[in-house]
Amino acid sequence: MTILIKAGIIGASGYAGCEVLRILLMHPDVDVVAVSARSYLGKKVSDLYPSFYQRTDLVYVEDQEVIDKADVIFASLPNGLSEKYAKQTEALGKKIIDLGADFRLDSEEVYHQWYGFNYNEKALHERQVYGLPEVNRDKIKDATIIGNPGCYVTSVLLGLYPLMKAKANASQKIIANSASGVTGAGKGLSDDTHFPKTNESYHPYKVGAHRHTPEIEQELSKMNGQDVRVTFVPHLLPVNRGIVSTIYVDLKPEFTLEDVYSIYEDAYKDEYFVHVLPLGKVADLKFIQYTNHCHISLHMDERDHTLIIVSTIDNMVKGAAGQAVQNMNIMFGLDEKAGLTLVGPSF
Amino acid sequence: MTILIKAGIIGASGYAGCEVLRILLMHPDVDVVAVSARSYLGKKVSDLYPSFYQRTDLVYVEDQEVIDKADVIFASLPNGLSEKYAKQTEALGKKIIDLGADFRLDSEEVYHQWYGFNYNEKALHERQVYGLPEVNRDKIKDATIIGNPGCYVTSVLLGLYPLMKAKANASQKIIANSASGVTGAGKGLSDDTHFPKTNESYHPYKVGAHRHTPEIEQELSKMNGQDVRVTFVPHLLPVNRGIVSTIYVDLKPEFTLEDVYSIYEDAYKDEYFVHVLPLGKVADLKFIQYTNHCHISLHMDERDHTLIIVSTIDNMVKGAAGQAVQNMNIMFGLDEKAGLTLVGPSF
Amino acid sequence: MTILIKAGIIGASGYAGCEVLRILLMHPDVDVVAVSARSYLGKKVSDLYPSFYQRTDLVYVEDQEVIDKADVIFASLPNGLSEKYAKQTEALGKKIIDLGADFRLDSEEVYHQWYGFNYNEKALHERQVYGLPEVNRDKIKDATIIGNPGCYVTSVLLGLYPLMKAKANASQKIIANSASGVTGAGKGLSDDTHFPKTNESYHPYKVGAHRHTPEIEQELSKMNGQDVRVTFVPHLLPVNRGIVSTIYVDLKPEFTLEDVYSIYEDAYKDEYFVHVLPLGKVADLKFIQYTNHCHISLHMDERDHTLIIVSTIDNMVKGAAGQAVQNMNIMFGLDEKAGLTLVGPSF
Amino acid sequence: MTILIKAGIIGASGYAGCEVLRILLMHPDVDVVAVSARSYLGKKVSDLYPSFYQRTDLVYVEDQEVIDKADVIFASLPNGLSEKYAKQTEALGKKIIDLGADFRLDSEEVYHQWYGFNYNEKALHERQVYGLPEVNRDKIKDATIIGNPGCYVTSVLLGLYPLMKAKANASQKIIANSASGVTGAGKGLSDDTHFPKTNESYHPYKVGAHRHTPEIEQELSKMNGQDVRVTFVPHLLPVNRGIVSTIYVDLKPEFTLEDVYSIYEDAYKDEYFVHVLPLGKVADLKFIQYTNHCHISLHMDERDHTLIIVSTIDNMVKGAAGQAVQNMNIMFGLDEKAGLTLVGPSF
Repeated sequence: MTILIKAGIIGASGYAGCEVLRILLMHPDVDVVAVSARSYLGKKVSDLYPSFYQRTDLVYVEDQEVIDKADVIFASLPNGLSEKYAKQTEALGKKIIDLGADFRLDSEEVYHQWYGFNYNEKALHERQVYGLPEVNRDKIKDATIIGNPGCYVTSVLLGLYPLMKAKANASQKIIANSASGVTGAGKGLSDDTHFPKTNESYHPYKVGAHRHTPEIEQELSKMNGQDVRVTFVPHLLPVNRGIVSTIYVDLKPEFTLEDVYSIYEDAYKDEYFVHVLPLGKVADLKFIQYTNHCHISLHMDERDHTLIIVSTIDNMVKGAAGQAVQNMNIMFGLDEKAGLTLVGPSF
Repeated sequence: MTILIKAGIIGASGYAGCEVLRILLMHPDVDVVAVSARSYLGKKVSDLYPSFYQRTDLVYVEDQEVIDKADVIFASLPNGLSEKYAKQTEALGKKIIDLGADFRLDSEEVYHQWYGFNYNEKALHERQVYGLPEVNRDKIKDATIIGNPGCYVTSVLLGLYPLMKAKANASQKIIANSASGVTGAGKGLSDDTHFPKTNESYHPYKVGAHRHTPEIEQELSKMNGQDVRVTFVPHLLPVNRGIVSTIYVDLKPEFTLEDVYSIYEDAYKDEYFVHVLPLGKVADLKFIQYTNHCHISLHMDERDHTLIIVSTIDNMVKGAAGQAVQNMNIMFGLDEKAGLTLVGPSF
Repeated sequence: MTILIKAGIIGASGYAGCEVLRILLMHPDVDVVAVSARSYLGKKVSDLYPSFYQRTDLVYVEDQEVIDKADVIFASLPNGLSEKYAKQTEALGKKIIDLGADFRLDSEEVYHQWYGFNYNEKALHERQVYGLPEVNRDKIKDATIIGNPGCYVTSVLLGLYPLMKAKANASQKIIANSASGVTGAGKGLSDDTHFPKTNESYHPYKVGAHRHTPEIEQELSKMNGQDVRVTFVPHLLPVNRGIVSTIYVDLKPEFTLEDVYSIYEDAYKDEYFVHVLPLGKVADLKFIQYTNHCHISLHMDERDHTLIIVSTIDNMVKGAAGQAVQNMNIMFGLDEKAGLTLVGPSF
Repeated sequence: MTILIKAGIIGASGYAGCEVLRILLMHPDVDVVAVSARSYLGKKVSDLYPSFYQRTDLVYVEDQEVIDKADVIFASLPNGLSEKYAKQTEALGKKIIDLGADFRLDSEEVYHQWYGFNYNEKALHERQVYGLPEVNRDKIKDATIIGNPGCYVTSVLLGLYPLMKAKANASQKIIANSASGVTGAGKGLSDDTHFPKTNESYHPYKVGAHRHTPEIEQELSKMNGQDVRVTFVPHLLPVNRGIVSTIYVDLKPEFTLEDVYSIYEDAYKDEYFVHVLPLGKVADLKFIQYTNHCHISLHMDERDHTLIIVSTIDNMVKGAAGQAVQNMNIMFGLDEKAGLTLVGPSF
């Protein structure tokens, strides 16, 4: 008989935490021992989300109870709150996967500039691992603190990784035009996510100033071995789930589209969750929704050798909860796909 | 090691057949050995539905190959075409689950009146079993030919079964006002499912004349032990998936809403897939989408003792493919839930 | 040169008030002299709703300023707040059109039962006129206080008026199954109108207990000359605008569907805003959105002589702001269509 | 009494032609004398689009009848078919506004390369005028043949016109990432516009190869006085109407964002239909839907001086039918706003 991993979720009332719970309840190797949510203490998860009726009797408890009971803790909290929990889990020899931004940025200065907080426990940040498995799998294996990547960031990084590694970009300046479904804005109410406003609408926001920008640049620069700058513009899409990033890069003249395709095929040939579509096909968020997959398609504006990369993921799964579970699988030596094998609905 | 059941799908390019394939690919006890689709012969399933990329290499073959290779055949065909296949499968000692209407109606006359075809193989129809597990589980166990219920029908029957059995209805006349997502109309193109027309729209169709009416009445009459008449009006809802049936019944004066609730609780207490919501809650298709669950809520217009039952399912799952797999599970002595344990997304 | 009517709106930040403003800005005979909104005092309308950029410089002022400046006041306020303004306008010889429920119900007792307030100024309510032009046009001409009908109510009353008048109903019990777009819930934020929840969703609410019920029954009973009871169930539809009411009535045996059609044609032949579709067609909210029109289609479940009436309006226009302007046109002797001649978009 | 202009529409069954009709029916100075549609000959417009019930009795006639009766002809036809009609209208001293691409491109070679047809009547093309009023108003006044701009093109050109004219761009290479509602794909059915596919979806198409590219480049190059290259990627948005173009340009170092704002304000200060939003606001298609307005917002990625321009229009109105009517107004010396003064709905 398998010994189940004891998992817990801090902040399990929001969308990301709820999605982690949903995935873990279907995970063959996991027992969810506790979930917390300050505002819903003592309430059943299924009262908040009736999808869970008959599927779990879990009741929201205090954060501390989650840390006490679980061996792996998923944290889905407002920025600035995860450090103290990471300190505790590390001291207890437990593992933490943080879905927020507190363990993603290498530079405290950059973190402070974009998020307004300091690194109070600097030592922790030296051990943090950026949880993008396709790039950092080996480091994730031994990590105790994972900074789970941002949703937009994941779509852009997976879309560019092979190109950056091959240094096939002619310029260090990249444009990433992204669009996300509304779950990306979370469970909190706002004028901009009120149905009559959002429905039949579409618009950019935080133009050129979104917090995912430094995270994208940090990781791209590492891949490319030199500084990469990204002009990143997110848009709000009137759908529930999914991100499409349309990325524009000047390609070095010596590379053809076919060369690039080979580079991508090669880079991702062993990756279960990343699929490079045949040349001529276009990636479409429809076909990855609800799954942990990333679909990538490659295109060229031949007239001036601009490479256009389309990269699409489900923002709640590969962009958040699914990737967190994928990280857990790696950290615990499980099958990396465990709990993440949903064949996506096509309609 | 488990011996896998060899399953095949005839008509696997349409929505229902595709959804059966999707579920079976995640089923722990099944090997999908062949799928057919006349119009896509030789094509990969993943070319038609890119969600299947990297998940299956299946290629559409001839119908006959499906019958030859599989032990259980799912048929998702235009009405009138399943009889010949059922004859064959029976002769070969195989099982067939028909997702169309050819094996649902007891009376050839009624079938002819609403569908325009005859029963050419009358003997087959004597052995057909109406595949609503919550009502007919025992018969399904030994069946070789299953008529898988219609989507609207499933929502209405599950919504009324306990009431009918308890004979708590004061009148034999019931009104069922249903609304379905657009996948119910299938993959075929039509003016009414063209996005700019369907989006931001809502309207009834086939008012009082939908083919699911005789099927509803046949089964309700059996449950109630007397003739039941239904005025059934379906509506097209601008969502992809899900059916909500709002059902109006005159309740016998001696029954209170609490009595009815007890009757429902009792009737469904052992049913994994049917959930009666606490009084005061309202069933919402949001919370059953993509799952094989049915949520039911009960309400009363006290002023004239009209019971209002709200019953919601996913038309593609409990209303079609999921229920078909549930039937297969029962027929093969598997865990009835196998392959159907998705915890539904809440957003 | 035309002398323009001076109109003002109290509560012009909410959806209904904003829609009145939008229509009046396009009205050839009206000058909007002031609009108020407590929470947005001093703000430009166009800051709240950028559709108004370059179309009006109006700034939200105090309620009193609206009453002082305008000859006709549209009030779109929470229930219970309109009486004091109506008292004032009457004293000043001005006219008020109330879009809330304060002047709709004849009986103070019924008002108190459903809304929890009393009639403090009973004399006012003796002079209130129920503003459904197709039924009460003559009374509206001379009215000074209009209770503008509820949105659901309008759709049900127009759908039943000819039948009630002809006393062709076999029973006094009617079922009205209605569905409304989300603007009906107003501008206020709520979990149930948060995009990820509402989108791809559909569910009934306030089942058998919605406040529009007594208003429907009051008016139907007057039309029918005897008490009429309605079981009314509203549903939330994932579209912005529009109501479809599907109404079920037992028809007297001596009436055929063709008879009913003639009765409706005759009743509405001179009505610009109400259109009875040819038998065989189905009313669809798509084709009345953004307009002041009501489309009605008639259907029969022949098997037990149940008449099914489908009545559709735009909840914000014929169900609120448009009807209010129609009432104003009648009160001021203008062309009843003035400002309301938009040909609806078909897509 | 005004003498009404006699207008006719060739190809009035498709979306663009139908929208021209809808606008013209509300135009104070126009009488629509005839509309044609080959596939619907003899049918009422209101049978095809029930929004027109009671608003027009027009019946689709032959193309020739439109030319015979009307003084101004709107043509909404498949590419390659308008030339013969333009020849006729010119000979008859009538005016033609072509909503297709046949009279947009200056170079026959470019037209042939992208559309596959030749210019059979070369003289006509010497007299064609590109119908973008904000740029070409004077030429439009005297034109007899108008090539009405493409929908995407309009959004991009209006978004860039002041910048191009001021030569404030540091590079001749521009990226235009656009997204359009589904009406842009027209009335014809396709797998990609089937509701269950399009809904909850989003993807680019014709990446770097859309026919609007040469049209954009032709006009931008004229404005800028030198060759401008555009990498243009359109996306399909799950809404009915509206285009948002997010445009990326390298700005000359000597220009600040405030400078650019002044240039735009100045360029459009007298334009009724174009509105530059205050700095800090973001253009949103919500607020221009159904209107002939264009909203533009300006943003800067300060880190490398990339200007980001957001330009949004309703693809069916300013992107097609509304602009065509605006052109007609100019050609006939009418108020340029006539028939185009709808205040857009905000919800």
